[in-house]
Amino acid sequence: MEPRKPYDIDSLTDVALRVFADRGYDGASMDDVARAAGITKASIYHHVSGKEALLERGLGRALDALFAILDEPAARDGRAVDRLRHIVERVAETTLHLLPELTVLFRVHGASKSERNAVDRRRAFDRLVTDIIAQAQREGDVRRDLDPRLLARLIFGMSNSVVEWYRSGSLSREAIAHAVVALAFDGVTTR
Amino acid sequence: MEPRKPYDIDSLTDVALRVFADRGYDGASMDDVARAAGITKASIYHHVSGKEALLERGLGRALDALFAILDEPAARDGRAVDRLRHIVERVAETTLHLLPELTVLFRVHGASKSERNAVDRRRAFDRLVTDIIAQAQREGDVRRDLDPRLLARLIFGMSNSVVEWYRSGSLSREAIAHAVVALAFDGVTTR
Repeated sequence: MEPRKPYDIDSLTDVALRVFADRGYDGASMDDVARAAGITKASIYHHVSGKEALLERGLGRALDALFAILDEPAARDGRAVDRLRHIVERVAETTLHLLPELTVLFRVHGASKSERNAVDRRRAFDRLVTDIIAQAQREGDVRRDLDPRLLARLIFGMSNSVVEWYRSGSLSREAIAHAVVALAFDGVTTR
Repeated sequence: MEPRKPYDIDSLTDVALRVFADRGYDGASMDDVARAAGITKASIYHHVSGKEALLERGLGRALDALFAILDEPAARDGRAVDRLRHIVERVAETTLHLLPELTVLFRVHGASKSERNAVDRRRAFDRLVTDIIAQAQREGDVRRDLDPRLLARLIFGMSNSVVEWYRSGSLSREAIAHAVVALAFDGVTTR
Protein backbone atom coordinates (compact mmCIF):
# COMPACT_ATOMS: atom_id res chain seq x y z
CA MET A 1 0.00 0.00 0.00
CA GLU A 2 1.40 3.36 -0.98
CA PRO A 3 1.71 5.94 1.76
CA ARG A 4 -1.10 8.48 1.62
CA LYS A 5 -0.28 11.82 0.05
CA PRO A 6 -0.01 14.37 2.88
CA TYR A 7 -3.16 16.40 3.44
CA ASP A 8 -3.34 20.01 2.39
CA ILE A 9 -6.11 22.45 3.21
CA ASP A 10 -8.13 21.47 0.13
CA SER A 11 -8.04 17.71 0.69
CA LEU A 12 -8.85 18.25 4.38
CA THR A 13 -11.83 20.35 3.34
CA ASP A 14 -12.96 17.45 1.11
CA VAL A 15 -12.91 15.09 4.09
CA ALA A 16 -14.62 17.58 6.41
CA LEU A 17 -17.44 18.26 3.94
CA ARG A 18 -18.22 14.57 3.61
CA VAL A 19 -18.38 14.33 7.42
CA PHE A 20 -20.57 17.46 7.65
CA ALA A 21 -22.89 16.20 4.88
CA ASP A 22 -23.17 12.84 6.60
CA ARG A 23 -23.61 13.82 10.26
CA GLY A 24 -24.79 17.41 9.91
CA TYR A 25 -22.45 20.30 10.62
CA ASP A 26 -23.72 20.80 14.19
CA GLY A 27 -23.52 17.09 14.93
CA ALA A 28 -19.98 16.69 13.55
CA SER A 29 -16.91 17.28 15.71
CA MET A 30 -13.27 17.86 14.80
CA ASP A 31 -12.69 14.39 16.29
CA ASP A 32 -15.02 13.01 13.60
CA VAL A 33 -13.09 14.88 10.90
CA ALA A 34 -9.75 13.64 12.27
CA ARG A 35 -11.05 10.05 12.39
CA ALA A 36 -12.36 10.27 8.80
CA ALA A 37 -9.02 11.71 7.66
CA GLY A 38 -7.05 9.10 9.61
CA ILE A 39 -4.84 11.73 11.25
CA THR A 40 -4.73 13.45 14.63
CA LYS A 41 -6.70 16.52 15.51
CA ALA A 42 -3.39 18.31 16.12
CA SER A 43 -2.37 17.68 12.49
CA ILE A 44 -5.63 19.24 11.30
CA TYR A 45 -5.09 22.34 13.43
CA HIS A 46 -1.72 22.66 11.70
CA HIS A 47 -3.68 23.46 8.51
CA VAL A 48 -6.83 25.16 9.70
CA SER A 49 -8.06 27.15 12.68
CA GLY A 50 -11.13 25.00 13.34
CA LYS A 51 -14.45 23.56 12.24
CA GLU A 52 -15.95 26.85 11.11
CA ALA A 53 -12.96 27.59 8.85
CA LEU A 54 -13.54 24.24 7.12
CA LEU A 55 -17.24 25.03 6.76
CA GLU A 56 -16.43 28.48 5.37
CA ARG A 57 -14.17 26.99 2.68
CA GLY A 58 -16.84 24.45 1.75
CA LEU A 59 -19.60 27.05 1.54
CA GLY A 60 -17.28 29.25 -0.53
CA ARG A 61 -16.74 26.44 -3.03
CA ALA A 62 -20.50 25.82 -3.32
CA LEU A 63 -21.38 29.48 -3.81
CA ASP A 64 -18.48 30.22 -6.18
CA ALA A 65 -19.66 27.31 -8.35
CA LEU A 66 -23.26 28.59 -8.38
CA PHE A 67 -22.27 32.17 -9.25
CA ALA A 68 -19.86 30.92 -11.96
CA ILE A 69 -22.91 29.44 -13.73
CA LEU A 70 -24.43 32.91 -14.08
CA ASP A 71 -21.28 34.04 -15.92
CA GLU A 72 -21.47 31.30 -18.54
CA PRO A 73 -22.32 32.66 -22.02
CA ALA A 74 -25.56 30.63 -22.23
CA ALA A 75 -26.69 32.18 -18.93
CA ARG A 76 -25.99 35.71 -20.15
CA ASP A 77 -27.03 35.82 -23.79
CA GLY A 78 -30.32 35.09 -25.50
CA ARG A 79 -33.94 34.95 -24.47
CA ALA A 80 -34.57 34.85 -20.74
CA VAL A 81 -36.34 31.49 -20.92
CA ASP A 82 -33.32 29.90 -22.61
CA ARG A 83 -30.94 31.46 -20.09
CA LEU A 84 -33.16 30.12 -17.31
CA ARG A 85 -33.17 26.63 -18.81
CA HIS A 86 -29.37 26.65 -18.98
CA ILE A 87 -29.07 27.86 -15.39
CA VAL A 88 -31.49 25.26 -14.00
CA GLU A 89 -29.70 22.44 -15.81
CA ARG A 90 -26.24 23.62 -14.71
CA VAL A 91 -27.35 24.13 -11.09
CA ALA A 92 -28.64 20.54 -11.00
CA GLU A 93 -25.41 19.23 -12.56
CA THR A 94 -23.29 21.27 -10.17
CA THR A 95 -25.30 20.07 -7.18
CA LEU A 96 -24.52 16.47 -8.13
CA HIS A 97 -20.90 17.23 -9.03
CA LEU A 98 -20.20 19.03 -5.72
CA LEU A 99 -22.63 16.99 -3.65
CA PRO A 100 -21.05 17.41 -0.17
CA GLU A 101 -20.52 21.16 -0.70
CA LEU A 102 -24.08 21.78 -1.86
CA THR A 103 -25.57 19.44 0.75
CA VAL A 104 -23.93 21.50 3.47
CA LEU A 105 -24.95 24.79 1.82
CA PHE A 106 -28.61 23.79 1.48
CA ARG A 107 -28.80 22.89 5.18
CA VAL A 108 -27.18 26.05 6.51
CA HIS A 109 -29.47 28.25 8.57
CA GLY A 110 -27.27 31.18 9.51
CA ALA A 111 -26.15 30.22 13.02
CA SER A 112 -22.62 31.66 12.66
CA LYS A 113 -20.98 34.48 10.70
CA SER A 114 -19.87 32.15 7.88
CA GLU A 115 -23.37 30.68 7.70
CA ARG A 116 -25.10 34.07 7.65
CA ASN A 117 -22.73 35.19 4.90
CA ALA A 118 -23.57 32.05 2.91
CA VAL A 119 -27.31 32.58 3.42
CA ASP A 120 -26.91 36.17 2.13
CA ARG A 121 -24.99 35.07 -0.97
CA ARG A 122 -27.55 32.34 -1.65
CA ARG A 123 -30.36 34.89 -1.42
CA ALA A 124 -28.50 37.15 -3.86
CA PHE A 125 -28.23 34.20 -6.28
CA ASP A 126 -31.97 33.50 -5.95
CA ARG A 127 -32.75 37.17 -6.62
CA LEU A 128 -30.67 37.17 -9.82
CA VAL A 129 -32.51 34.06 -11.06
CA THR A 130 -35.87 35.53 -10.01
CA ASP A 131 -35.10 38.58 -12.19
CA ILE A 132 -34.49 36.29 -15.18
CA ILE A 133 -37.80 34.49 -14.52
CA ALA A 134 -39.61 37.84 -14.35
CA GLN A 135 -38.02 38.84 -17.66
CA ALA A 136 -39.11 35.53 -19.25
CA GLN A 137 -42.63 36.31 -18.02
CA ARG A 138 -42.52 39.75 -19.67
CA GLU A 139 -41.28 38.11 -22.88
CA GLY A 140 -44.29 35.77 -22.79
CA ASP A 141 -42.32 32.53 -22.45
CA VAL A 142 -43.05 31.77 -18.79
CA ARG A 143 -46.52 31.61 -17.25
CA ARG A 144 -47.52 34.86 -15.56
CA ASP A 145 -50.07 33.45 -13.11
CA LEU A 146 -47.39 32.56 -10.56
CA ASP A 147 -45.06 34.86 -8.64
CA PRO A 148 -41.48 34.68 -10.01
CA ARG A 149 -40.02 34.33 -6.51
CA LEU A 150 -42.32 31.39 -5.80
CA LEU A 151 -41.34 29.79 -9.13
CA ALA A 152 -37.63 30.18 -8.27
CA ARG A 153 -38.17 28.58 -4.87
CA LEU A 154 -40.13 25.64 -6.24
CA ILE A 155 -37.72 24.97 -9.12
CA PHE A 156 -34.68 25.07 -6.85
CA GLY A 157 -36.62 23.15 -4.17
CA MET A 158 -36.99 20.35 -6.69
CA SER A 159 -33.39 20.57 -7.88
CA ASN A 160 -31.89 20.89 -4.40
CA SER A 161 -33.81 17.83 -3.20
CA VAL A 162 -31.29 15.63 -5.02
CA VAL A 163 -28.91 16.06 -2.09
CA GLU A 164 -31.44 14.17 0.06
CA TRP A 165 -31.99 11.15 -2.19
CA TYR A 166 -29.20 10.86 -4.78
CA ARG A 167 -26.97 7.82 -4.42
CA SER A 168 -24.17 7.37 -6.96
CA GLY A 169 -24.56 4.40 -9.27
CA SER A 170 -28.28 4.74 -9.89
CA LEU A 171 -29.09 7.32 -12.57
CA SER A 172 -26.38 9.43 -14.21
CA ARG A 173 -25.97 13.04 -13.16
CA GLU A 174 -26.86 14.13 -16.67
CA ALA A 175 -30.09 12.10 -16.65
CA ILE A 176 -31.15 13.67 -13.35
CA ALA A 177 -30.28 17.21 -14.49
CA HIS A 178 -32.24 16.56 -17.68
CA ALA A 179 -35.26 15.35 -15.66
CA VAL A 180 -35.17 18.44 -13.43
CA VAL A 181 -35.29 20.69 -16.50
CA ALA A 182 -37.97 18.59 -18.19
CA LEU A 183 -40.22 18.66 -15.13
CA ALA A 184 -39.63 22.33 -14.28
CA PHE A 185 -40.29 23.53 -17.82
CA ASP A 186 -42.93 21.14 -19.13
CA GLY A 187 -44.41 19.33 -16.12
CA VAL A 188 -45.31 15.66 -15.87
CA THR A 189 -48.35 15.63 -18.11
CA THR A 190 -48.27 14.69 -21.78
CA ARG A 191 -48.92 17.64 -24.05
CA MET B 1 -53.49 37.02 32.41
CA GLU B 2 -55.30 33.72 32.62
CA PRO B 3 -53.33 30.78 33.97
CA ARG B 4 -52.07 28.50 31.23
CA LYS B 5 -54.05 25.34 30.65
CA PRO B 6 -52.04 22.41 32.02
CA TYR B 7 -50.00 20.57 29.43
CA ASP B 8 -51.03 17.15 28.23
CA ILE B 9 -49.02 14.84 26.02
CA ASP B 10 -50.43 16.37 22.83
CA SER B 11 -49.75 20.00 23.70
CA LEU B 12 -46.25 19.04 24.92
CA THR B 13 -45.65 17.32 21.58
CA ASP B 14 -46.70 20.57 19.85
CA VAL B 15 -44.06 22.49 21.78
CA ALA B 16 -41.37 19.84 21.26
CA LEU B 17 -41.96 19.72 17.50
CA ARG B 18 -41.54 23.47 17.17
CA VAL B 19 -38.26 23.20 19.09
CA PHE B 20 -37.09 20.24 16.96
CA ALA B 21 -38.05 22.01 13.71
CA ASP B 22 -36.22 25.14 14.84
CA ARG B 23 -32.99 23.72 16.29
CA GLY B 24 -32.89 20.31 14.63
CA TYR B 25 -33.78 17.17 16.59
CA ASP B 26 -30.14 16.31 17.35
CA GLY B 27 -29.37 19.86 18.41
CA ALA B 28 -32.42 20.17 20.69
CA SER B 29 -32.32 19.09 24.33
CA MET B 30 -35.09 18.36 26.81
CA ASP B 31 -33.93 21.55 28.55
CA ASP B 32 -34.81 23.45 25.36
CA VAL B 33 -38.24 21.81 25.30
CA ALA B 34 -38.83 22.61 28.97
CA ARG B 35 -37.75 26.22 28.43
CA ALA B 36 -40.06 26.58 25.41
CA ALA B 37 -42.94 25.08 27.40
CA GLY B 38 -42.20 27.25 30.43
CA ILE B 39 -42.22 24.28 32.80
CA THR B 40 -39.58 22.12 34.46
CA LYS B 41 -37.97 19.10 32.85
CA ALA B 42 -39.40 16.99 35.71
CA SER B 43 -42.95 18.04 34.72
CA ILE B 44 -42.28 16.90 31.17
CA TYR B 45 -41.03 13.51 32.32
CA HIS B 46 -44.33 13.18 34.17
CA HIS B 47 -45.99 12.95 30.73
CA VAL B 48 -43.40 11.35 28.49
CA SER B 49 -40.37 9.07 28.79
CA GLY B 50 -38.01 11.34 26.86
CA LYS B 51 -37.03 13.17 23.71
CA GLU B 52 -37.37 10.17 21.40
CA ALA B 53 -40.94 9.53 22.59
CA LEU B 54 -41.84 13.11 21.64
CA LEU B 55 -40.18 12.64 18.24
CA GLU B 56 -42.03 9.37 17.72
CA ARG B 57 -45.39 11.03 18.38
CA GLY B 58 -44.54 13.86 15.99
CA LEU B 59 -43.42 11.51 13.23
CA GLY B 60 -46.56 9.45 13.77
CA ARG B 61 -48.76 12.52 13.28
CA ALA B 62 -46.92 13.45 10.07
CA LEU B 63 -47.11 9.97 8.57
CA ASP B 64 -50.72 9.34 9.64
CA ALA B 65 -51.70 12.58 7.90
CA LEU B 66 -49.87 11.59 4.70
CA PHE B 67 -51.39 8.10 4.60
CA ALA B 68 -54.86 9.51 5.34
CA ILE B 69 -54.60 11.44 2.05
CA LEU B 70 -54.31 8.17 0.13
CA ASP B 71 -57.65 7.06 1.64
CA GLU B 72 -59.55 10.12 0.46
CA PRO B 73 -62.08 9.31 -2.27
CA ALA B 74 -60.36 11.58 -4.83
CA ALA B 75 -57.11 9.70 -4.22
CA ARG B 76 -58.76 6.31 -4.76
CA ASP B 77 -61.25 6.75 -7.58
CA GLY B 78 -60.85 7.95 -11.15
CA ARG B 79 -58.01 8.21 -13.61
CA ALA B 80 -54.54 7.85 -12.13
CA VAL B 81 -53.49 11.33 -13.27
CA ASP B 82 -56.42 12.91 -11.42
CA ARG B 83 -55.71 10.86 -8.29
CA LEU B 84 -52.08 11.98 -8.51
CA ARG B 85 -53.09 15.63 -8.86
CA HIS B 86 -55.28 15.36 -5.76
CA ILE B 87 -52.53 13.66 -3.77
CA VAL B 88 -49.86 16.21 -4.72
CA GLU B 89 -52.14 19.12 -3.80
CA ARG B 90 -53.16 17.56 -0.48
CA VAL B 91 -49.57 16.66 0.44
CA ALA B 92 -48.53 20.28 -0.12
CA GLU B 93 -51.49 21.55 1.93
CA THR B 94 -50.80 19.06 4.71
CA THR B 95 -47.12 19.99 4.77
CA LEU B 96 -48.07 23.62 5.40
CA HIS B 97 -50.84 22.72 7.84
CA LEU B 98 -48.59 20.46 9.95
CA LEU B 99 -45.39 22.38 9.28
CA PRO B 100 -43.36 21.37 12.39
CA GLU B 101 -44.37 17.71 12.06
CA LEU B 102 -43.46 17.50 8.38
CA THR B 103 -40.29 19.59 8.83
CA VAL B 104 -39.07 17.06 11.38
CA LEU B 105 -40.13 14.10 9.20
CA PHE B 106 -38.35 15.40 6.09
CA ARG B 107 -35.08 15.81 8.00
CA VAL B 108 -35.08 12.39 9.65
CA HIS B 109 -32.26 10.12 8.52
CA GLY B 110 -32.86 6.94 10.47
CA ALA B 111 -30.48 7.35 13.41
CA SER B 112 -32.81 5.72 15.99
CA LYS B 113 -35.53 3.07 15.94
CA SER B 114 -38.33 5.66 15.68
CA GLU B 115 -36.49 7.41 12.87
CA ARG B 116 -35.84 4.19 10.94
CA ASN B 117 -39.50 3.26 11.31
CA ALA B 118 -40.50 6.68 9.96
CA VAL B 119 -38.08 6.37 7.03
CA ASP B 120 -39.62 2.96 6.21
CA ARG B 121 -43.18 4.33 6.31
CA ARG B 122 -42.17 7.30 4.17
CA ARG B 123 -40.64 4.95 1.59
CA ALA B 124 -43.86 2.92 1.58
CA PHE B 125 -45.82 6.12 0.90
CA ASP B 126 -43.46 7.04 -1.95
CA ARG B 127 -43.86 3.56 -3.45
CA LEU B 128 -47.66 3.85 -3.42
CA VAL B 129 -47.49 7.21 -5.19
CA THR B 130 -44.90 5.86 -7.64
CA ASP B 131 -47.36 3.09 -8.56
CA ILE B 132 -50.02 5.70 -9.31
CA ILE B 133 -47.55 7.64 -11.50
CA ALA B 134 -46.68 4.43 -13.38
CA GLN B 135 -50.37 3.77 -13.94
CA ALA B 136 -50.88 7.32 -15.24
CA GLN B 137 -48.01 6.67 -17.65
CA ARG B 138 -49.70 3.47 -18.88
CA GLU B 139 -52.94 5.42 -19.32
CA GLY B 140 -51.05 7.93 -21.50
CA ASP B 141 -51.61 10.95 -19.23
CA VAL B 142 -48.09 11.29 -17.79
CA ARG B 143 -44.91 11.46 -19.88
CA ARG B 144 -43.19 8.11 -20.23
CA ASP B 145 -39.65 9.35 -20.90
CA LEU B 146 -38.91 9.71 -17.18
CA ASP B 147 -38.73 7.02 -14.53
CA PRO B 148 -41.80 7.10 -12.22
CA ARG B 149 -39.62 6.88 -9.09
CA LEU B 150 -37.59 9.85 -10.27
CA LEU B 151 -40.79 11.80 -10.99
CA ALA B 152 -42.09 11.04 -7.48
CA ARG B 153 -38.82 12.21 -5.93
CA LEU B 154 -38.72 15.44 -7.91
CA ILE B 155 -42.39 16.30 -7.32
CA PHE B 156 -42.12 15.70 -3.59
CA GLY B 157 -38.69 17.37 -3.55
CA MET B 158 -40.41 20.51 -4.81
CA SER B 159 -43.36 20.17 -2.44
CA ASN B 160 -41.28 19.30 0.61
CA SER B 161 -39.02 22.30 0.04
CA VAL B 162 -41.75 24.53 1.48
CA VAL B 163 -40.61 23.55 4.98
CA GLU B 164 -37.31 25.32 4.24
CA TRP B 165 -38.66 28.62 2.99
CA TYR B 166 -42.32 29.07 4.00
CA ARG B 167 -43.00 31.85 6.48
CA SER B 168 -46.59 32.44 7.52
CA GLY B 169 -48.11 35.68 6.38
CA SER B 170 -46.65 35.73 2.89
CA LEU B 171 -48.66 33.60 0.45
CA SER B 172 -51.65 31.52 1.56
CA ARG B 173 -51.25 27.79 1.97
CA GLU B 174 -53.78 27.23 -0.78
CA ALA B 175 -51.88 29.48 -3.20
CA ILE B 176 -48.67 27.58 -2.55
CA ALA B 177 -50.33 24.15 -2.90
CA HIS B 178 -51.91 25.35 -6.15
CA ALA B 179 -48.49 26.51 -7.44
CA VAL B 180 -46.90 23.15 -6.58
CA VAL B 181 -49.57 21.34 -8.62
CA ALA B 182 -49.37 23.84 -11.48
CA LEU B 183 -45.61 23.54 -11.75
CA ALA B 184 -45.46 19.76 -11.29
CA PHE B 185 -48.17 19.07 -13.87
CA ASP B 186 -47.66 21.79 -16.47
CA GLY B 187 -44.21 23.30 -15.88
CA VAL B 188 -43.24 26.96 -16.03
CA THR B 189 -43.47 27.52 -19.75
CA THR B 190 -46.51 28.91 -21.53
CA ARG B 191 -48.24 26.37 -23.69
